[in-house]
Amino acid sequence: MKEKEKIILVTNDDGIFAPGLHNLVEAVRDLGRVYVVAPDSPQSGKGHAVTLREPLRFNPVDTFEGIEAWESSGTPVDCVKWAKNVLLKNKTIDLCVSGINHGANYSINIIYSGTMSAAMEAAFEGVHSIGFSLLDFSLDADFTEARRSATEISRFVLSQPPNPKRPLLLNVNIPALPEHELKGMKLCRQANARWVEEFKEARDPQGNKYYWLAGEFVNMDRGKDTDVQALEEGYISIVPCQFDLTDYHVFDQLTELHHERKEVG
Amino acid sequence: MKEKEKIILVTNDDGIFAPGLHNLVEAVRDLGRVYVVAPDSPQSGKGHAVTLREPLRFNPVDTFEGIEAWESSGTPVDCVKWAKNVLLKNKTIDLCVSGINHGANYSINIIYSGTMSAAMEAAFEGVHSIGFSLLDFSLDADFTEARRSATEISRFVLSQPPNPKRPLLLNVNIPALPEHELKGMKLCRQANARWVEEFKEARDPQGNKYYWLAGEFVNMDRGKDTDVQALEEGYISIVPCQFDLTDYHVFDQLTELHHERKEVG
Repeated sequence: MKEKEKIILVTNDDGIFAPGLHNLVEAVRDLGRVYVVAPDSPQSGKGHAVTLREPLRFNPVDTFEGIEAWESSGTPVDCVKWAKNVLLKNKTIDLCVSGINHGANYSINIIYSGTMSAAMEAAFEGVHSIGFSLLDFSLDADFTEARRSATEISRFVLSQPPNPKRPLLLNVNIPALPEHELKGMKLCRQANARWVEEFKEARDPQGNKYYWLAGEFVNMDRGKDTDVQALEEGYISIVPCQFDLTDYHVFDQLTELHHERKEVG
Repeated sequence: MKEKEKIILVTNDDGIFAPGLHNLVEAVRDLGRVYVVAPDSPQSGKGHAVTLREPLRFNPVDTFEGIEAWESSGTPVDCVKWAKNVLLKNKTIDLCVSGINHGANYSINIIYSGTMSAAMEAAFEGVHSIGFSLLDFSLDADFTEARRSATEISRFVLSQPPNPKRPLLLNVNIPALPEHELKGMKLCRQANARWVEEFKEARDPQGNKYYWLAGEFVNMDRGKDTDVQALEEGYISIVPCQFDLTDYHVFDQLTELHHERKEVG
């Protein structure tokens, strides 16, 4: 019996024309039937934003030979929602891959990243999902090794049984290193790190002050098992993620807030 | 010795003119020195978006008597970043409160919500933080009980020792019920739930198709200890949150992805 063809949704946050997206399509093209739905403009740092106050547009594009592709006026999360509910309404998506992002998304960046938010949205829908990011912001970055690992990791995830109640959600970051300097792959935890922001002040021609948000990533985590550490050592980092944010460890500290209504007056 | 005055940052995602913000300012006004930095327009569903590609503007407003307040062209997360790094650069923020949101932010909505993302951003910065949401979307909602509980919970959190490495981050949802129908407060976990989307199709005057994102919240979680359940029973729900998304339970399943580089050729 012929195995059912796998359905693979590809998206990103750098936009439909980003080289990283094209490399990701090439990475998974032979693993199943590929559909692309991606923003029509860069959406870096859009986190899990959805578009509620403006209409959303989706237009077909013939950017990828032999592959159905759509560009959207919305965010990466909008793209996944529309793909799931409109374009692929009657199909089961076996895998969603997002990226390959131009720039890192390790550690806390999973929360800011449109790339990872798109993957997470697909995971909300019960779909195994992977976000890929290359540690090179440049438009002409070399995606050779990133593409190779995207194929390997995607193939592995597709080989896992579907688990709609607890799908896999992987945050994969790839060092910008040539093949012979890459050490391998490491399963890691999210490093405890944050951005230290600097707001660059400027004045517009009317003399009004404005700011550009800029910042520096600071790793406060000395653990040896983090994604930041693995990347520093030359490994591809893989952080399996979930989205129950409950902090079960502080309930004890908060018992004073757990009470029946006090009768007033 | 006189106790040092507490510094309280207030923000929201409904914008500087939302009644919920004004109610939150009133709720915490007597607990310390209050600063307000809030978006100049509604930012619901913006998640953890930051503004990277446009300049950010911040203008002082005299909306709140005796309180320094600023409106921003940016997202809720931008507001917190700017408050921390520019406005309150040389001060220690003791508490960040966000809301009171017009509408629910329980369960998975913590990820989509600008209200909760602002609180989470402050927690990234080591600040005890609370997001408040009232289960009533209307602009003329009755905030009496929400305001009362915001005062109680904020006072409690301010009484806790600072813990920059592991600050408190609470997601508080308040049922739209009169005082005598409120049952009390419950510490809960985030319910496992999701949105089932519906995209409403329409045509613009040029005949081009567009969509409005709409959806229905579906709770798949039968647990008795969830925020959704507590709210259904008439309790104020309080979910303590954290932001390490690592899924430590699936490492075993993924060992095949943990390997040293295979020599090629």
